[in-house]
Amino acid sequence: NPSFNIAIIPGDGIGKEVIPEGLRVLDAAAKRFGIHLEYKHIEWASCDYYAQTGKMMPDDWKQQLQGCDAIYFGAVGWPATVPDHVSLWGSLLKFRREFDQYVNLRPVRLFEGVPCPLANRKPGDIDFYVVRENTEGEYTAIGGIMYEGTERELVLQQSAFSRRGTDRILKYAFELAQSRARRRLTVATKSNGIAISMPWWDSRADEMAKNYPDITVDKQHIDILAARFVLQPDRFDVVVASNLFGDILSDLGPACTGTMGLAPSANLNPERLFPSLFEPVHGSAPDIYGQNIANPIAMIWSGALMLDFLGQRAAHDAILEAIKQVLAHGPRTPDLGGNAGTADIGMAIAAAV
Amino acid sequence: NPSFNIAIIPGDGIGKEVIPEGLRVLDAAAKRFGIHLEYKHIEWASCDYYAQTGKMMPDDWKQQLQGCDAIYFGAVGWPATVPDHVSLWGSLLKFRREFDQYVNLRPVRLFEGVPCPLANRKPGDIDFYVVRENTEGEYTAIGGIMYEGTERELVLQQSAFSRRGTDRILKYAFELAQSRARRRLTVATKSNGIAISMPWWDSRADEMAKNYPDITVDKQHIDILAARFVLQPDRFDVVVASNLFGDILSDLGPACTGTMGLAPSANLNPERLFPSLFEPVHGSAPDIYGQNIANPIAMIWSGALMLDFLGQRAAHDAILEAIKQVLAHGPRTPDLGGNAGTADIGMAIAAAV
Ligand SMILES: CC(C)[C@H](C(=O)O)[C@@H](O)C(=O)O
Ligand SMILES: CC(C)[C@H](C(=O)O)[C@@H](O)C(=O)O
Repeated sequence: NPSFNIAIIPGDGIGKEVIPEGLRVLDAAAKRFGIHLEYKHIEWASCDYYAQTGKMMPDDWKQQLQGCDAIYFGAVGWPATVPDHVSLWGSLLKFRREFDQYVNLRPVRLFEGVPCPLANRKPGDIDFYVVRENTEGEYTAIGGIMYEGTERELVLQQSAFSRRGTDRILKYAFELAQSRARRRLTVATKSNGIAISMPWWDSRADEMAKNYPDITVDKQHIDILAARFVLQPDRFDVVVASNLFGDILSDLGPACTGTMGLAPSANLNPERLFPSLFEPVHGSAPDIYGQNIANPIAMIWSGALMLDFLGQRAAHDAILEAIKQVLAHGPRTPDLGGNAGTADIGMAIAAAV
Repeated sequence: NPSFNIAIIPGDGIGKEVIPEGLRVLDAAAKRFGIHLEYKHIEWASCDYYAQTGKMMPDDWKQQLQGCDAIYFGAVGWPATVPDHVSLWGSLLKFRREFDQYVNLRPVRLFEGVPCPLANRKPGDIDFYVVRENTEGEYTAIGGIMYEGTERELVLQQSAFSRRGTDRILKYAFELAQSRARRRLTVATKSNGIAISMPWWDSRADEMAKNYPDITVDKQHIDILAARFVLQPDRFDVVVASNLFGDILSDLGPACTGTMGLAPSANLNPERLFPSLFEPVHGSAPDIYGQNIANPIAMIWSGALMLDFLGQRAAHDAILEAIKQVLAHGPRTPDLGGNAGTADIGMAIAAAV
């Protein structure tokens, strides 16, 4: 039987509420498909841990996680006590970088039973992937402040793109596009405004495109591209973007399908040199924590992506089918107009699996 | 009678088609309200001029424009012959910077007669402003490429924020919010990812907020903020953002109201040390140029914003009323489902004024 070690990190807020439901469904799928999952439960990478220790993670965090096959991650952040840039840079963003999870893969899909904020769109109309660069680009702590605290204050912030980092995400996106029926790739850019890095990014995309003559490529500036997510979401198939642009597009895409609270994400190291990490796109949502109303579907769907990455395609498909059924027929949490609790959804999906 | 010198710059593509309709409506308003408008027609700041001279503008462009009260600007860009970063940095972006037009003001409004891509929204529901910083931030040509052309290639791109540049745009936005009924200001940020400039930007917003205790302020990360433009557009009143974030939001906002092709913008130097510039948000649209189908409403609305800035509030209101009427009752260009030509719209709005 296939067997995997999974590190479980609930994190903060509703992360702690949705993780148990994610595990419930994973267990159901594991049982049905004869997969052995070994969990390692981890309390750190949370603001609670920070409150006790003054840091987000123990010094040997890498050693503790290095042996596992994947990380199943809830959400991190509790801004009332720890500023977001401290909690995130001290945990999630560290995993992404130090485990070289350079692909952030985020599906955007319109489901039956999920009210769509766009007019006249129906299930099946929208079905694409955002492929986000996840380790470099605009997210850096490089830069500084001159004349700090005075009227003359000047702040410099560096973005950094490497050919290696850019080419590998483009390659991943081209290959994903090749696996799809429409074989279309949209490249997000802003070469008309951001005058050094983005024209260069475009040139790397042009170069890579030469290896994939079967893919239809178009480059779009991030402003008009965001607009088209709303106006013509049906025309997208695979969208590849830098760290920042991918961050924006992978919230906007799910918003356009009404699945903000349902969207999963996979932080992948495709070469499997390091564990990959699977997490909901939603955050820790302090405003609804503790009320048993958080929707666990993003967490559950992230678990399906994890099984897929571990080679368990059939288990992935079964979970996704179960999610579709529950979305279409209920039960539903309040965000989707129902009054079920977090655990009710987990149990319904586990039963359907 | 009030009298103003206006520089007219059609630019490229549909800029050349919509400018005459903008002037037609300006003339009608000027006649009705007894305003004297003196036009100076300018052929440069266009890719045609670039083809003839190898540059976008003559060396004395600043002297030629310095005396005018405002610049009425079509659109620039013809990527088939001149790369966008060359044409834009050589004209529009130069105006914004060298004339210190540090406010880019973009209204977002839902009109009767304009199909809205969002479900269940009606005229009146959406009515807010995006206030975009327009002279610094992420738009720079500072940076460079190391190990160029090799596998080790590394690209650095600098963003630059000054306290002066940041405080003045925040101040403008707070004051605009004070002039509105809801008195709400949303500050776009990404302090959880962009670790130097954005936490600093947040701290400037906090500082400025102390001067405006009557304004309800909330800071939102750009990813979730973009999502909320789709999910809860009714909750926005004034949104203030950096150059890049403002660029994205001010395309996304109009997209959400179906007015992508209708949206105007004002590039303001509020101190009036330099001429301000008024232009549609849409670009030169090479794909539809020459077919007489471009919708001139963004150009016309930009003219109304210009008159408002010149102190002619009544003329602004009359043009906006005329636009509303034509949107509600036709004629309409193909983008709004009609078959009227560009000039038909200009004539109808001029007549209504
Ligand atoms: C053409 C481009 C440089 C410009 C910008 O990004 O500022 C445009 O998108 C705009 O919004 O005015
Ligand atoms: C929390 C934040 C740092 C993070 C990001 O911007 O990457 C989140 O928005 C995401 O998309 O995973």
